[in-house]
Amino acid sequence: MTGKLVLLRHGQSTWNQDNLFTGWTDVDLTDQGRNEARNAGIALRDAGYEFDIAFTSVLKRAIRTLWIVLDEMDMMWLPVDRNWVLNERHYGSLQGSNKAETVAKYGMQKVQSWRRGYEAEPPPLQADDPRHPRFDRRYSGIGVQNLPATESLATTLARVLPHWRNNIAPRLRNGEDVLVVAHGNSLRALVMELDHLDRDEILKLHIPTGVPLTYDLDANLKALDRRFLGDPEAVRAAQEAVAAQLQQGQQ
Amino acid sequence: MTGKLVLLRHGQSTWNQDNLFTGWTDVDLTDQGRNEARNAGIALRDAGYEFDIAFTSVLKRAIRTLWIVLDEMDMMWLPVDRNWVLNERHYGSLQGSNKAETVAKYGMQKVQSWRRGYEAEPPPLQADDPRHPRFDRRYSGIGVQNLPATESLATTLARVLPHWRNNIAPRLRNGEDVLVVAHGNSLRALVMELDHLDRDEILKLHIPTGVPLTYDLDANLKALDRRFLGDPEAVRAAQEAVAAQLQQGQQ
Repeated sequence: MTGKLVLLRHGQSTWNQDNLFTGWTDVDLTDQGRNEARNAGIALRDAGYEFDIAFTSVLKRAIRTLWIVLDEMDMMWLPVDRNWVLNERHYGSLQGSNKAETVAKYGMQKVQSWRRGYEAEPPPLQADDPRHPRFDRRYSGIGVQNLPATESLATTLARVLPHWRNNIAPRLRNGEDVLVVAHGNSLRALVMELDHLDRDEILKLHIPTGVPLTYDLDANLKALDRRFLGDPEAVRAAQEAVAAQLQQGQQ
Repeated sequence: MTGKLVLLRHGQSTWNQDNLFTGWTDVDLTDQGRNEARNAGIALRDAGYEFDIAFTSVLKRAIRTLWIVLDEMDMMWLPVDRNWVLNERHYGSLQGSNKAETVAKYGMQKVQSWRRGYEAEPPPLQADDPRHPRFDRRYSGIGVQNLPATESLATTLARVLPHWRNNIAPRLRNGEDVLVVAHGNSLRALVMELDHLDRDEILKLHIPTGVPLTYDLDANLKALDRRFLGDPEAVRAAQEAVAAQLQQGQQ
């Protein structure tokens, strides 16, 4: 039987709170973010979920969310596969700027195209910029030519999908229950695949933070059912947000 | 160049504190154990250590120690390989008993043979005992015939060594820096191999908790140098304890 799949977007980070473009910057969770993670873990535990493996990124806001969930579920022993391809979209040289500054510098139209476009890429990090991933040991196993210095939504989705096909999907087909803790844009790639969303629909879809999104899948890994899990208030807010986004997408 | 190796035994657990036989029972760290882990992480960070991979067991006292170390070192992204073969020695049906009770039940001589002998095994868990590892999901991928219901020091060492040879040693030969966070008896297997200890020497060797033991290795993975790392007080205590053990071993 096909395994169960749960997707979870990390809780609030310090740069979410400060309204800065984050991307690959390795900021930590806020206290609110840790509480969101704790509630997600409690919801999964109370609903009787267990897992055989967890997938996450190499960014600490996702890993810390996963650690808190595993601790709440008393499943610290779970194998964890960390992979940079589940990272958030790289936001190029905008990383660390706040949104108002960026609008002042580049103009609203440009910033909107980077934030809401499918293929637009923010200005890249220069190769000698200390923020470039080639200076970070966690990416040392990856050829420099494969390391992004900026990304569009399209290129982000393109690096997530092979990981889904080659590493995550085979586990589910094998009957294993899988937890994926990642980021807004890397999770969009998985939802796009599972729910057969097109480009316009995925642009409108914003996955809520800290609310587990659980999937029942058929043998072809298509979604039979999906629902949010947790305290009724958080779930209703999450459902309404997603419904409103998809509604807009259809207009 | 051969990678660097650091061994770390988890900090104090709740059952260490209560003086109970622990074995595979999945007890957590005490506050003191968490402090030991924090100090180990700070010592590694201050000495400039970095790693490419960490190996640990599937028991939370080791995993929590590793998590605290990775957090202090700002290396939460590090790939972590969890494997049951790095678990503590299985203590059979003694798990959960205190040492005085056990002596009253079995006699001092028997208990000494289990604690200090090389091949003596405590009474095994019965197959229907709820503590038997076959009822625990973390061991579900392992054939029941390979799951111990009790272990001697000899059988513990025997299950650790193939993991060393097949998974840990190749990383070091490949130039990767490796951290192993595990248990008193599973770490003995590695020290025995690295320091060419014989059966009598390994019986006398008790690795101190929470003090990183760092190795410089030659191309054949034999120890060129080893030292404890951390605050001078802890290091001196650790060195004296080990020296005294090996001294006894030579008598």
